[in-house]
Amino acid sequence: MKMKDKLTIIKVGGKIVEEPESLGNLLRDFASIDGFKLLVHGGGRSATRLASELGVETRMIDGRRITDDAMLRIVTMVYGGLVNKTVVAQLQSMGLDAIGLTGADLNIIRSHKRPVKDIDYGWVGDVDEVNSKMLEGLLKIGAVPVIAPLTHDKSGHLLNTNADTMAGETARAMASLFDVTLVYCFEKPGVLMDENNDDSVIPFIDRAAFAGLVGSGVVNGGMIPKIENALQAVDAGVKEVIITRADSLGNLNAGTHVR
Amino acid sequence: MKMKDKLTIIKVGGKIVEEPESLGNLLRDFASIDGFKLLVHGGGRSATRLASELGVETRMIDGRRITDDAMLRIVTMVYGGLVNKTVVAQLQSMGLDAIGLTGADLNIIRSHKRPVKDIDYGWVGDVDEVNSKMLEGLLKIGAVPVIAPLTHDKSGHLLNTNADTMAGETARAMASLFDVTLVYCFEKPGVLMDENNDDSVIPFIDRAAFAGLVGSGVVNGGMIPKIENALQAVDAGVKEVIITRADSLGNLNAGTHVR
Repeated sequence: MKMKDKLTIIKVGGKIVEEPESLGNLLRDFASIDGFKLLVHGGGRSATRLASELGVETRMIDGRRITDDAMLRIVTMVYGGLVNKTVVAQLQSMGLDAIGLTGADLNIIRSHKRPVKDIDYGWVGDVDEVNSKMLEGLLKIGAVPVIAPLTHDKSGHLLNTNADTMAGETARAMASLFDVTLVYCFEKPGVLMDENNDDSVIPFIDRAAFAGLVGSGVVNGGMIPKIENALQAVDAGVKEVIITRADSLGNLNAGTHVR
Repeated sequence: MKMKDKLTIIKVGGKIVEEPESLGNLLRDFASIDGFKLLVHGGGRSATRLASELGVETRMIDGRRITDDAMLRIVTMVYGGLVNKTVVAQLQSMGLDAIGLTGADLNIIRSHKRPVKDIDYGWVGDVDEVNSKMLEGLLKIGAVPVIAPLTHDKSGHLLNTNADTMAGETARAMASLFDVTLVYCFEKPGVLMDENNDDSVIPFIDRAAFAGLVGSGVVNGGMIPKIENALQAVDAGVKEVIITRADSLGNLNAGTHVR
């Protein structure tokens, strides 16, 4: 069997991509990663800031942004324009042939508008399909995709889409073509045994270890779905999911490795 | 000698791309054009509107936007995000595999910051090089490039760049690879013999005719550099430059043909 090429998918969000100094450091570390690579970014703080400047109210439910017409205009500008093109221009200056993409560009990621149940999230998309062949084609010509958290429904609507989910779905879709490592940049250096001790990173977690960590209460709250998603990605063929701090991207042996 | 494939480059700006109804009509006409095609868009009105909403003053000199840090943020959001991604999503819904690009993406168009002479235009770029091979590669995989009026300097800076110029430079660069027609959408149906009569379109202009039209005063003011640029594009190998009204894109026999 032919060895698959290595592909590293990095998801980074929060203030790391939105402050010039930390962004520069992050992108230098990203540029130094060997093999094929792809970046998925967020930009929520910048969107909230622009909304505030424009007098548009930001409403979040369970960490998800309610996206009405005015907010869709804002996230399209901030995610697809400001954050995405700033990252692309900086990577180009580092010699990487970056290409900024939303899910609409080349129909890379198609989604559907989330159905209204208890909550109407507005123009929010749930991913249907990642165009892995097109992404492979871009990678093979030497391009480095930089993906903004926007998708489309193929009927002309852009949809605000969770960047963690997009990174996870992209990793799964690419797993049949590449040996995929998915890296989630996190505010802490990994999953911690003791949440007050940054030196207590759990280096490896598999499904059995996860059950034990949940049972003992070490892993709780929002970390449970995060690790569950990582394990599902591994089940779907992703080689490993690394949860690490953005300033540790230069050493992917650090952090928590979910396998 | 092998016949070159036909490539139609359309430049469209102004309110046509910024109003939903006219944009839909324009894109349907664009989608119906045979052969390879590429769209370059503007978005100045939307940028001016956002600037106004944000309390940022718009300063124009000779029709060019002074682009300080605050204005660069605005045009990056509006051109690279709002206008570009709206067009891409709509073309995708029409079955075209559109891809939105600034000059930074895949290093498609590199420029340098305009030197300060009498006027400091700020973050404004003058085009150095169009990556015709990369654009050819995209066209040949079936992609339809949608280019926003932003370039980069390969040193990490995005630069606000005139869309007419970008379309012209792209047409020249592509002329060695394709049989290129460049179409400038204009507010009038073409170059008019009598500026008050929309039925007086001059169907063909070459360099000799141009000299006569300038000499007699029929062509004057801002039309002189526009036609001069078109003639230079023809000198550089572009097959013809069509100046027409956006609502006539469905019939490229209309308008003024500069050859």
